[in-house]
Amino acid sequence: MLYFTSDYMEGAHPNILKRLNETNLVHSVGYGLDEYSESAKEKIRKICQIPDADIFFLIGGTQTNSIVIDSMLESYKGVISADTGHINLHEAGSVEYTGHKIFLLPHDKGKIKADQISSEMEKYINDSNKDHMVMPGLVYISQPTEYGTLYSISELKQLRQVCNKYNLYLFADGARLAYALGSSENTVSLKDLAKLCDVFYIGGTKCGAFYGEAVVFPKHNTVPHFMTIMKQRGALAAKGRILGIQFDTLFSDNLYENLGKHAVSLADKIRASLKSTDYTETIKNTTNQIFILMNKKQAAKLSKYVQMSFWEEHSVDKVVMRLVTSWATTEEDTAELIDVLKK
Amino acid sequence: MLYFTSDYMEGAHPNILKRLNETNLVHSVGYGLDEYSESAKEKIRKICQIPDADIFFLIGGTQTNSIVIDSMLESYKGVISADTGHINLHEAGSVEYTGHKIFLLPHDKGKIKADQISSEMEKYINDSNKDHMVMPGLVYISQPTEYGTLYSISELKQLRQVCNKYNLYLFADGARLAYALGSSENTVSLKDLAKLCDVFYIGGTKCGAFYGEAVVFPKHNTVPHFMTIMKQRGALAAKGRILGIQFDTLFSDNLYENLGKHAVSLADKIRASLKSTDYTETIKNTTNQIFILMNKKQAAKLSKYVQMSFWEEHSVDKVVMRLVTSWATTEEDTAELIDVLKK
Amino acid sequence: MLYFTSDYMEGAHPNILKRLNETNLVHSVGYGLDEYSESAKEKIRKICQIPDADIFFLIGGTQTNSIVIDSMLESYKGVISADTGHINLHEAGSVEYTGHKIFLLPHDKGKIKADQISSEMEKYINDSNKDHMVMPGLVYISQPTEYGTLYSISELKQLRQVCNKYNLYLFADGARLAYALGSSENTVSLKDLAKLCDVFYIGGTKCGAFYGEAVVFPKHNTVPHFMTIMKQRGALAAKGRILGIQFDTLFSDNLYENLGKHAVSLADKIRASLKSTDYTETIKNTTNQIFILMNKKQAAKLSKYVQMSFWEEHSVDKVVMRLVTSWATTEEDTAELIDVLKK
Amino acid sequence: MLYFTSDYMEGAHPNILKRLNETNLVHSVGYGLDEYSESAKEKIRKICQIPDADIFFLIGGTQTNSIVIDSMLESYKGVISADTGHINLHEAGSVEYTGHKIFLLPHDKGKIKADQISSEMEKYINDSNKDHMVMPGLVYISQPTEYGTLYSISELKQLRQVCNKYNLYLFADGARLAYALGSSENTVSLKDLAKLCDVFYIGGTKCGAFYGEAVVFPKHNTVPHFMTIMKQRGALAAKGRILGIQFDTLFSDNLYENLGKHAVSLADKIRASLKSTDYTETIKNTTNQIFILMNKKQAAKLSKYVQMSFWEEHSVDKVVMRLVTSWATTEEDTAELIDVLKK
Repeated sequence: MLYFTSDYMEGAHPNILKRLNETNLVHSVGYGLDEYSESAKEKIRKICQIPDADIFFLIGGTQTNSIVIDSMLESYKGVISADTGHINLHEAGSVEYTGHKIFLLPHDKGKIKADQISSEMEKYINDSNKDHMVMPGLVYISQPTEYGTLYSISELKQLRQVCNKYNLYLFADGARLAYALGSSENTVSLKDLAKLCDVFYIGGTKCGAFYGEAVVFPKHNTVPHFMTIMKQRGALAAKGRILGIQFDTLFSDNLYENLGKHAVSLADKIRASLKSTDYTETIKNTTNQIFILMNKKQAAKLSKYVQMSFWEEHSVDKVVMRLVTSWATTEEDTAELIDVLKK
Repeated sequence: MLYFTSDYMEGAHPNILKRLNETNLVHSVGYGLDEYSESAKEKIRKICQIPDADIFFLIGGTQTNSIVIDSMLESYKGVISADTGHINLHEAGSVEYTGHKIFLLPHDKGKIKADQISSEMEKYINDSNKDHMVMPGLVYISQPTEYGTLYSISELKQLRQVCNKYNLYLFADGARLAYALGSSENTVSLKDLAKLCDVFYIGGTKCGAFYGEAVVFPKHNTVPHFMTIMKQRGALAAKGRILGIQFDTLFSDNLYENLGKHAVSLADKIRASLKSTDYTETIKNTTNQIFILMNKKQAAKLSKYVQMSFWEEHSVDKVVMRLVTSWATTEEDTAELIDVLKK
Repeated sequence: MLYFTSDYMEGAHPNILKRLNETNLVHSVGYGLDEYSESAKEKIRKICQIPDADIFFLIGGTQTNSIVIDSMLESYKGVISADTGHINLHEAGSVEYTGHKIFLLPHDKGKIKADQISSEMEKYINDSNKDHMVMPGLVYISQPTEYGTLYSISELKQLRQVCNKYNLYLFADGARLAYALGSSENTVSLKDLAKLCDVFYIGGTKCGAFYGEAVVFPKHNTVPHFMTIMKQRGALAAKGRILGIQFDTLFSDNLYENLGKHAVSLADKIRASLKSTDYTETIKNTTNQIFILMNKKQAAKLSKYVQMSFWEEHSVDKVVMRLVTSWATTEEDTAELIDVLKK
Repeated sequence: MLYFTSDYMEGAHPNILKRLNETNLVHSVGYGLDEYSESAKEKIRKICQIPDADIFFLIGGTQTNSIVIDSMLESYKGVISADTGHINLHEAGSVEYTGHKIFLLPHDKGKIKADQISSEMEKYINDSNKDHMVMPGLVYISQPTEYGTLYSISELKQLRQVCNKYNLYLFADGARLAYALGSSENTVSLKDLAKLCDVFYIGGTKCGAFYGEAVVFPKHNTVPHFMTIMKQRGALAAKGRILGIQFDTLFSDNLYENLGKHAVSLADKIRASLKSTDYTETIKNTTNQIFILMNKKQAAKLSKYVQMSFWEEHSVDKVVMRLVTSWATTEEDTAELIDVLKK
């Protein structure tokens, strides 16, 4: 059986395990105030070129999204998101749990555009009932999106402009950020994210760590007492050093970006191979997720050899299936998969 | 420098690291539905003798306390706790964040007694304004307590009786449970906890794991859809297997209890040594925390050699300091500490 | 100037004022436990033919919607509503504030259909990720809707069936219920609502009272301790008798339905008159709201004589304006309005 | 039967009813933007000498307390209150429902002192774990207190100073404020409250209105978008004018203070009469609540003639009963009560 279901199906990159072994019996203070966490933060500050950034290590994506969003919004404010946004569909209402409405914009391959936000804001501003309405306060995007697509640097700049115009925060969910950074088509660097977003996070869980997401507030004190907020929401790890060690490793020797490149290059091979098969790539993108339109019969047959995930019903006899590569995917498995696809 | 500050200052027990290494590249499903998690659950069910128990692995203590409590209480209900309860003092209001009041009872060395709960409940029941008041719905205790003391089996049975009488849930916070189980004075087994509590958790973070707490609901379906609740609160680990592997290891070869025994035996040695020193043990207990009353001058001097934690001001010139042993404390460090204390 | 802006622009029906005068110095107990409240509840129970119903008087519509919904849903459940639902647009996120997501279905003149709910529920049930998703738990409808339209008895029965099938509560917002009951086309009686809904409310604020909404749970103890929940959310009036007196008056001598009939009959006259004008009725309905499509120039001119509310932009040069009649609208003002419209 | 149970047992002062009658059919805009509300606000601004104050009319005390407190505190902040504070005991956990912890200080006849707050704050500031703790953010007092006692101007100034020193808001709950203003011993004017508090409210429900509390923020924009917050919490009355008319009447011809004086003068007569009886006044105060220590037999006998409220058990055979006068209490009833007490 070949495993292409998702990018969180294995443990952690061997460098991380090695470093955990080496440091295991060192004594250090808790709650993220240790030297490993500090070193990891410094590396991230450096690569993002934001020396004053506040950086916090949280444990998972849903936790990070809901805490970041709630900590940045007054109680009467809401979030603008693509209707396909992870916070809308697959986080069990964690944003609403903290009291905030999500305004849904129709997506284009997982992305939203600056002019959609403008329209939404103009409608709000001109509504004579706006005192009876939730006020949009933050724009949530993901890079890459849930469809594996990427915002270009020009699209991101336009989002920044519209956020400036309407006094909105811009937040990028980077749960799979390594696979954006590792894409040959990517035009948005970590430095760009740091310059254009009010907050974003660098995903660890899906990008080679056991767990962990690094939240980056480029501007110091964007959210005062964020550490206490983390504690209150159960997101402050006692052994914070484990997070620090993981991110310190991921940001050593360009590992984070390299893991992304590795996964994307394998995904690209799979994509290229599809041309000589009966399968059609759909929702085309340049990161580590490959969406394939296939007959239900094909899907059933293929499932005997390959674990993949069902994405959506396409029509009576067709489905979209998703294959995902990761830092852990091997050249061998990829070659085997291509063989299987070609048969 | 000797390190006796707390029990979460190092990594994880070497067996855990070993197992993480061995399993690192195995592919498995996410969100705790993997075979390692299932195996760990089975082991816990067996040792607790509760074949139908629901078991969930969460990430940290504060998270666990607030989610368990909120999931068991209607919105108009509150929690009864010792005023020294961890949920009251050092969890940044995480219980109130979920909407519930904490009723504080004065503690006796960290413990509360059944008759205090009776009084509180009688007062509530007889209050003509009770429809305007929060209804007590759950009793929170910790085993061992924040002072290292233990509930005896007879005290626990009395708590169960009073909870039955007044329709209250009984919840035991076992963040340091290994050090209760490892105490020579302990009379409450895992089986007893499973029999007498509606829910309790087996602490991992402070007892040899990198992170993780195993929540045990002895009765199946005590809280329907607990997994979705975990997801909503950001407590559902994508790589749930890492939690499973850790608890599977801790519950192999009696490791969990042995780690507790190790730490307590070292603590006992330190306690015994105090008799031949100027130091006085205070808040006496039989687990892994040692509270020492000392002059501020002594404390300052000792701090040059030993990291410990300040517990509380005792008087103008005296303080209480806390020393903690753990699974990671060595015989060598303990012997050195005793030397230092004797000087 | 003629006033047709809304149905909450005046005080209360004179019978209510008279009764408040008569009872003003009577002493009675607080918090809705008085004889007037009890009498009002009995009258509602009788007319609805639900002798065991729990009835509570709350103060306003937004308060009622959010408390009822939250009190009926576990934290992981959400509400299904038309996208035009009042809870979605004009209640400042009060449902999300209590932690619940709203699932939006596209409306048909303010209404949603049973088969839309079926589709939504089938999609949810068949989603392999449903443990990561909010579970739909309640269907919110309004009678009449925000567009003045009415659910027929057959539509309501279909909603009940689909709710039974998928284990959903059915909740009818009756903020303007008098104007449904007073419509010549109405096929849903109070008795029907009591039979088919799990909870509904009888609006007072927009139907002749100073303030107040009567929440009806046909089945006793649907929500235990609802009174304490009201208190906790600031919705329990100390002088509950004022609510009791108002509803007791509205349910004496068929006043509530008569007020509705009065308003609707005047609205019908206005509608009839439109045929001999340049104006077009749009979003046709048979209650107390009249939606008129007109040129912006017409709208500007008309606004000199008539206060109405802007409903929505229709096109570059046309708008939809809303005229509303109420218990307080006079025959004289209606006649004058018709004159103005005809000019 | 004589009625001295509480101050919310009757309707509203006749002037209010008269004004409601006179204005009943006037058309006005909703949600508190009407001319009556504006006039009432202007009167309050004038008497408080705070021309830029933001004033909002809410509906009841619990609602007001929880919304004001939550709107002024970040999620990680809590409230300091006397343990006898209404928010702690008899508001069904409405403050915790909004997510905030209440820090309880032992009361002295319902009051807390500046130096208690200093101690609490010093303890917090010096706690090395304070990042894991709720941060005190607001001091809640009531004037008069739940025991009818009054803060003196010098006590209030000391509270202000300690709040300035520790960056705390000062909030005065004035649910019974008329009876403070009407006390011969009172040294704190409305002007003083406006100068010394960050926010306070002028109680209507217990002081002659049908319902309503006027929240006063002396400094403009203390809480941006407070109106939307009110809407979100179900506290924005559609017919806001009814609140406006009530407060406009209460602040015409010095009515509010006069109602207080009337009630307190009758309470003073009752107090004076106790000297020639077997009853003992306890928890002495100078407002409209009289606490009487009596034998249980006396209490039982007296209850045949007088409705009063049980306050607390004093000893095996004694209880404290509470008698309350109000704007609605008559000279005749007071004279009769004194006769009854003397027998």
